[in-house]
Amino acid sequence: MAMRAAYAEQLGPPDVIRYGELAAPVPGPDEVLVDVRATTVNPVDTFVRSGVFRTPLEFPFVVGRDLVGTVATPGGGFSVGDAVWCNSLGHGGRQGAAAEQAVVSLDRLYPLPPGVDPEVAVAVVHPTATAYLALFTHGGLESGETVLVGGAAGNVGAALVVLAVRAGARVIATASPRDHDYCRDLGAAEVVDYRDPDLTGHLSRLAPDGVGLHVDTSGHNDLASAVALLAHRGRVVLLAGAKDEPVLPVGPLYMKDASVRGFAISHATPAELASAAGAINDLLSAGLLRPRSTEVLPLSAAAEVHRRMEQGELHGRRVILRPGA
Amino acid sequence: MAMRAAYAEQLGPPDVIRYGELAAPVPGPDEVLVDVRATTVNPVDTFVRSGVFRTPLEFPFVVGRDLVGTVATPGGGFSVGDAVWCNSLGHGGRQGAAAEQAVVSLDRLYPLPPGVDPEVAVAVVHPTATAYLALFTHGGLESGETVLVGGAAGNVGAALVVLAVRAGARVIATASPRDHDYCRDLGAAEVVDYRDPDLTGHLSRLAPDGVGLHVDTSGHNDLASAVALLAHRGRVVLLAGAKDEPVLPVGPLYMKDASVRGFAISHATPAELASAAGAINDLLSAGLLRPRSTEVLPLSAAAEVHRRMEQGELHGRRVILRPGA
Repeated sequence: MAMRAAYAEQLGPPDVIRYGELAAPVPGPDEVLVDVRATTVNPVDTFVRSGVFRTPLEFPFVVGRDLVGTVATPGGGFSVGDAVWCNSLGHGGRQGAAAEQAVVSLDRLYPLPPGVDPEVAVAVVHPTATAYLALFTHGGLESGETVLVGGAAGNVGAALVVLAVRAGARVIATASPRDHDYCRDLGAAEVVDYRDPDLTGHLSRLAPDGVGLHVDTSGHNDLASAVALLAHRGRVVLLAGAKDEPVLPVGPLYMKDASVRGFAISHATPAELASAAGAINDLLSAGLLRPRSTEVLPLSAAAEVHRRMEQGELHGRRVILRPGA
Repeated sequence: MAMRAAYAEQLGPPDVIRYGELAAPVPGPDEVLVDVRATTVNPVDTFVRSGVFRTPLEFPFVVGRDLVGTVATPGGGFSVGDAVWCNSLGHGGRQGAAAEQAVVSLDRLYPLPPGVDPEVAVAVVHPTATAYLALFTHGGLESGETVLVGGAAGNVGAALVVLAVRAGARVIATASPRDHDYCRDLGAAEVVDYRDPDLTGHLSRLAPDGVGLHVDTSGHNDLASAVALLAHRGRVVLLAGAKDEPVLPVGPLYMKDASVRGFAISHATPAELASAAGAINDLLSAGLLRPRSTEVLPLSAAAEVHRRMEQGELHGRRVILRPGA
């Protein structure tokens, strides 16, 4: 059986991605075959394709982490036709999602809740899983804490706000003034212009008892200010800004029993991703996760979408790729 | 009732400590009165006395964190004459240990195991509690991990080695060449000269799978090297070097799911200290904790010992102060 896929024969720039026919994958034990209905492109997909993020893979390599689709061969608790999703293909030795069919291991496959639009789901499952891991797996968020979200109007930022508010936290967001209403609609209690010349002073007055958890999606990573704003036993979670080398003030960190914790979603275990998936399905069922801006294109546009993402032309817009379109 | 004590009427240099008579303290509910048999001086005692470490206290303020003694008034499970110890007096609104008698709340008082020399115990309970909190409460040490202890021949360093080895870790230590045999006797698998011109390279070869937990007691805090040496999900624990402002490489930190965690023992909760006390009593009973070098002086020498510690004249020697001597 053949299928159409977006795949690469080598690592490199966006135009290494070809669109054409490959042999359909065959599921092994504890795997099912999924008919892909929608996939998307994340920044991390461009890092895998370019080789910036080194991870085991085999050529021809199908790109892409995320899919929403229907089960084609039964397995585990899944029957043929069940609506499902996955957000951890295309790295760690696994082929990707940008194809008409994909093999998914049972511990990485989740049911799509009834009534949820597959194109809404595919647009949010990766940034929301990143946000979940930041807040809970690595950040240890507890109800009642103050969470500072830097870059709150982005895809991960918005998911951080929604998840933190739902967990009973008070959220202070930074964003451009044009995005302040959007951040408030997501549930942020306070929104501050990230270009405020007295940003740290302003944030400090809004969090007089200190920030319990600080997550900056912008890769700004001003750790001196971040540590100064922390509450006793506060945490800064780092997830972006790979080339940053900020100064870390040691005394202020340890005098507060504080910590700086980094993570990359690519290292998340199946159990951690499944925990995130549970929270994501709750929010999808409640209608609380939706992409701010989307564009739908055929799967054949994968290389072009990688190029536009790297050129900064998407401005956070989520592109949904439809196989067979 | 009057008692002799080492106390201050104001914060300041070592000579603010007087030696003379104060009214004996009176235990409240959930407190017992302890006849102090031995106390000591820790670096943190000098920070409290000087005002560098800000903490609630009342004048006249009896200095000192640690005591070993006998119960003078019964309470909780303790009877008159029971041998006991405490390592968290003299800060946080509590009067100190450097007196003939001290009041200790029941949740900060631990039995001294039978057969343990009080002067051995009083010399080790504070550095060993610091080491315990670094390894377990904040460092999350697991059996089988590689632990890198910087400054392993110091009081906290030696306790880190002993505790980590006992927990099933492989310990790599750094120390001066004259202390290498001492570190091996404590249980370190490898000892490296901290002045090795290729220190990071040398450590990297000794830990080919990376360092799970890195604790540097020397306050050297080279985070670029420390992060480079870490294993996946490795932790660096910071506890010294208050004025250091090293660079933290963000990408290497988050690409490893790694973290940098600081703490000060002064913030430990009674439950955390009690957990440390359990481990300390196990090691004391097994004869595995002993100070490397001690000096015994009367309590009236407290001011002089503070001065010598601040002048760097003690070189890690533990001074045991005896009330009534």
